[in-house]
Amino acid sequence: MYRKIETEIVLGGGMFRSAFLKNREIYGPLCIGFDPSHQVLHSWKLSFDYKGLKDFCDILLTAVIGKVGIIKPQVAFFELYGVEGLQALKELIEIAHEQGLLVLADAKRGDIGSTAEAYGKAWLGPSSAFKADAMTVNPFLGFDALIPLIKVAEETGAGVFVVVQSSNPEGKHIRNALIGDQTLSIHLAQCICDYNIQSRVMHHNLGPIGAVIGATLGSESKDTIEQLKNSLFLVPGIGAQGGTMLQLVHQFPQSLWQNVIPSVSRSITDAGRNIVDLKNVINDFAEQAQSTLMSCQSLSMP
Amino acid sequence: MYRKIETEIVLGGGMFRSAFLKNREIYGPLCIGFDPSHQVLHSWKLSFDYKGLKDFCDILLTAVIGKVGIIKPQVAFFELYGVEGLQALKELIEIAHEQGLLVLADAKRGDIGSTAEAYGKAWLGPSSAFKADAMTVNPFLGFDALIPLIKVAEETGAGVFVVVQSSNPEGKHIRNALIGDQTLSIHLAQCICDYNIQSRVMHHNLGPIGAVIGATLGSESKDTIEQLKNSLFLVPGIGAQGGTMLQLVHQFPQSLWQNVIPSVSRSITDAGRNIVDLKNVINDFAEQAQSTLMSCQSLSMP
Repeated sequence: MYRKIETEIVLGGGMFRSAFLKNREIYGPLCIGFDPSHQVLHSWKLSFDYKGLKDFCDILLTAVIGKVGIIKPQVAFFELYGVEGLQALKELIEIAHEQGLLVLADAKRGDIGSTAEAYGKAWLGPSSAFKADAMTVNPFLGFDALIPLIKVAEETGAGVFVVVQSSNPEGKHIRNALIGDQTLSIHLAQCICDYNIQSRVMHHNLGPIGAVIGATLGSESKDTIEQLKNSLFLVPGIGAQGGTMLQLVHQFPQSLWQNVIPSVSRSITDAGRNIVDLKNVINDFAEQAQSTLMSCQSLSMP
Repeated sequence: MYRKIETEIVLGGGMFRSAFLKNREIYGPLCIGFDPSHQVLHSWKLSFDYKGLKDFCDILLTAVIGKVGIIKPQVAFFELYGVEGLQALKELIEIAHEQGLLVLADAKRGDIGSTAEAYGKAWLGPSSAFKADAMTVNPFLGFDALIPLIKVAEETGAGVFVVVQSSNPEGKHIRNALIGDQTLSIHLAQCICDYNIQSRVMHHNLGPIGAVIGATLGSESKDTIEQLKNSLFLVPGIGAQGGTMLQLVHQFPQSLWQNVIPSVSRSITDAGRNIVDLKNVINDFAEQAQSTLMSCQSLSMP
């Protein structure tokens, strides 16, 4: 259905970050979430099955191509449809790659030791089952328990984004729990920073491990963000969930703006399935992201 | 390959717990993990693909049937093989059900709101994609963020096991982080207990939410376990990971022994692929579990 484009995607060998930085030069930093929830499929008059998912992905991809450089499928909404849903996700990733898009699987996987490694091998890099370029992971069983997964990312050139500070209110107790005199979020941020510093695959001062930081946290995330000098930030929650691009400028210090990947999901799909409408709303967010977050890039790019 | 047995599996309508209690009367409480890691498939001389997974499941199921009432596939080791791996898992669950076994998917899924609900709908109950009878979940984004998933469990009669206190050393900082003057583990245990008390689907004083408590924690888990009067406990880590059935007798107060589901994985598959050897080692663990944990059942059964 899509013409295979000829630009080379640089993957393998520590290259998620370089590919992201390259795509960002063309399209800006915006990431578009692919969230085919029942609610969205229903409002788009699509069926709750493989066919509906495929149509959803085709429509949204058509609108996204040429507007952004990275997409973030929410794995839960594909897994909801079982084996067929995951087949549709696998095909989405393949087609997105053919179009030069990077794919960050929002899988929030997390487990101990060999099991975490298995999740890494399932998702990350061109020889994995799903071939994502990066994934989100859950550190509840300990940051160090994720290291076997992080090693897979380093070997395959993929990115890992640890959920450090989500912005949902239900998570507040846990992200602010104290380890010594530090919050859990700050503890995780320090673990990431320390790991990145000693990683053999630094790229433009960015280590292999990124951080997920909610867009609506405002000053609550200040101390955590300050620890993260050498990581990309995946920042979901822009748009329908309450975050705005302008808030990000206040949430992140200027020196780190260039590391922010703002992500929009529901506000895009709420526009409906009409391609022109979708392109317009994607354009608006992409331009906002480009202008607000990139304004200082020429000053602070390494 | 297997003859469909005629005993009725009681599922739907809040029935994971009743089906577990019924199976336990016949087989005792032991749960067998299905962990087809690369290491195990290699040592069993099986291929790293759908065929290898199917053979692994067939062999282990043959050894398990008639010995235990519940199995726990580790989802990571199926997801490792992508869509085909998850197809093999789906088929394992179907065949296990035909044999009267309950299936607890060790998926450790966790996310916020609608996404958590999607994971519940993907995994739990007879109308879900994978049709598991219960699943493990990860509470890092807040206990309350799991409630949409728990509601799915209540509606479909499935079980949910929240990771409360894992026994891996890397998790110690996080599970002991303080919320007020309580550890995160105790906080989660209280959330579970409170939810179970008000749940409309109590069964024999057991609520729909169970807790995962590592087998090697010993007295470190005492205060957490004390909060959990009305939940089943999934207790992994017996055998190769260092826990023994005898330790459980000291770890759990006698009044709660009847709620413990000890789970063995690697110690079973380490016996190799010979059916007789597998049956022997399963028998040994099943008898240990039966005699050590059930000795007080006649006194304390509700």
